Amino acid sequence: MAKQIVTSGIRPTGQLHLGNFYGAMQNIQRLQDNYHAYFFIVDLHSLTTHPNAEHLRRHVIGVAKDYLAAGLDPNVSTLYAQSSIAEDICELHTYLSMVMPLGELLRCPTFKEKAKKHPDNVNYGLVGYPVLMAADVLIHKGTVVPVGEDQVVHLEMARTIVRRFNQLYGNVFPEPQPLLENAVRIPSLSGQGKMSKSDADDTYISMQEATDAIHSKVKKAFSDPERVYKNQPGHPTVKGCNVYHLHSFFTKEDQISSLAEQCRQAAIGCVDCKKHLAGSLTSIVEPFRERRNQITDDDVIEVLQAGRIKAKASSEKVIAEVRDAMGLRMF
Amino acid sequence: MAKQIVTSGIRPTGQLHLGNFYGAMQNIQRLQDNYHAYFFIVDLHSLTTHPNAEHLRRHVIGVAKDYLAAGLDPNVSTLYAQSSIAEDICELHTYLSMVMPLGELLRCPTFKEKAKKHPDNVNYGLVGYPVLMAADVLIHKGTVVPVGEDQVVHLEMARTIVRRFNQLYGNVFPEPQPLLENAVRIPSLSGQGKMSKSDADDTYISMQEATDAIHSKVKKAFSDPERVYKNQPGHPTVKGCNVYHLHSFFTKEDQISSLAEQCRQAAIGCVDCKKHLAGSLTSIVEPFRERRNQITDDDVIEVLQAGRIKAKASSEKVIAEVRDAMGLRMF
Ligand code: SF4
Ligand code: SF4
Repeated sequence: MAKQIVTSGIRPTGQLHLGNFYGAMQNIQRLQDNYHAYFFIVDLHSLTTHPNAEHLRRHVIGVAKDYLAAGLDPNVSTLYAQSSIAEDICELHTYLSMVMPLGELLRCPTFKEKAKKHPDNVNYGLVGYPVLMAADVLIHKGTVVPVGEDQVVHLEMARTIVRRFNQLYGNVFPEPQPLLENAVRIPSLSGQGKMSKSDADDTYISMQEATDAIHSKVKKAFSDPERVYKNQPGHPTVKGCNVYHLHSFFTKEDQISSLAEQCRQAAIGCVDCKKHLAGSLTSIVEPFRERRNQITDDDVIEVLQAGRIKAKASSEKVIAEVRDAMGLRMF
Repeated sequence: MAKQIVTSGIRPTGQLHLGNFYGAMQNIQRLQDNYHAYFFIVDLHSLTTHPNAEHLRRHVIGVAKDYLAAGLDPNVSTLYAQSSIAEDICELHTYLSMVMPLGELLRCPTFKEKAKKHPDNVNYGLVGYPVLMAADVLIHKGTVVPVGEDQVVHLEMARTIVRRFNQLYGNVFPEPQPLLENAVRIPSLSGQGKMSKSDADDTYISMQEATDAIHSKVKKAFSDPERVYKNQPGHPTVKGCNVYHLHSFFTKEDQISSLAEQCRQAAIGCVDCKKHLAGSLTSIVEPFRERRNQITDDDVIEVLQAGRIKAKASSEKVIAEVRDAMGLRMF
């Protein structure tokens, strides 16, 4: 059986940290192995915030490097900048906008939230965000879309659009199905919530972090608050110790058991345990950093140009079928 | 000095009658003689009402025949179906939607009217109608747009869009200026308001009308209600007699004076006066009908295909400049 088509948008949002690297990597692996996957960097969606051209360019190149370094193989999957096939996406977006009820868009929680945050900047395009997302999927007749919990409502709208479009113009699109992303939350070094770049610098590990910086950040990480002295036994569980929680993601299974055992017997101090964690993190960050640094801008441009050709081959076929169904472009 | 660029949309709305022929003809002449003119048949806008493909095709061909028969010279101006350059218009539409305030669109009188009429069919695209209209103009960097009074508000929105776009991305678009269309209202044969195809069949003259039908319709036309008998003098003024009002548009100046003179002296009866009017109308409808009947579907397709090439040369230049200004399509 032919592999299903999956479409996955990538936001160009500055440097990766360990937290979003972990999610991205899992996502890439799962999609690349099991589907005919289109990964696209969403430079059109980011227009709602009006970035300047050079920033946008740097961000697109940056995030492409991240994904390539994290394991995206452009010979297996297709990686492209969304705007590479802007003409087809935007054309489809315009057609889909004619079948999408305005009321549903205005009731969409993400729209309401954004409109509340920036009441002076509520543009027409902002309401249509889910319609543009639907176009991103349907331009390849995507059947599976990885979504976080907050995006389930967007995919539901894409399905509404498909049903209405097909009803009017014939059975053109499949209804895309959600593929729920594992909501892995890598904890912050501070022990307060998940790792995030909007928190203080020493609460997260960037994927560009130097090895000594990793060590010094982990050294200060929040650990078991009830273990004050080295001769006290610790609580090496996900809830009992934040450092242990981090180990559970990044340290090898057998080493984790051994560390936990020693901790419970007060045979290892937190300083050494953290050193071990820093080593685990380094063994992930360092090879990533090196792979990423070897990727030049020219490499990325070459990949994105090849990706554009593959994406375009798919999108132009679909848009031609859409025009045909709607009776457009006959002259 | 180079001619200004004018863009003029044509709705594919069934057969012409004398009333809208008169307006269309005036429009064509004025634009063709004085501007670098793009005439486009708006097959994308009509999608908000979801016509079927074959109807849409027939309508587009039909209205193209009308315009060619009415004097549009495709070697002087450019005539194309809007969907011929759908990819560029829709792409621009999507970008413009990111700078157009939603509130202004929701307050637009034409939107409010349509939303009230079809409350169950208020789609996202319906709100964006003025944005798509702006894209139709700006895709050629149109500087002049012929507008009826009810469309002035749409052009004002296009100007808002231009100002906001230019502010964000540099001086890309000129602000299009309105060219107010002469609101010529050809009266109905019934004397009730203007000629319209939504009224009874014998109140308007179709541009496909056979000569005997013209005569029999005009014979029953409403004339001076105060002139009951032939020996009474009539009131040959625009307000005094509906038949005179029609003469004022379609009969030659010197003949009108002579008819009026005879009417005032009760030297001519209404029957003969109407025969004269029927003759005037026939001399307009007949040559039009013959010209139109000589135009084959293949002729139209050839014209529209040549028009598409001319339109595309302009639109792809503009969209490339837009992408450049926005920092898109760099890969
Ligand atoms: S030894 Fe490790 S697991 Fe145990 S409390 Fe200290 S940091 Fe946590
Ligand atoms: S003669 Fe002609 S202008 Fe005079 S009242 Fe009759 S229809 Fe009207």
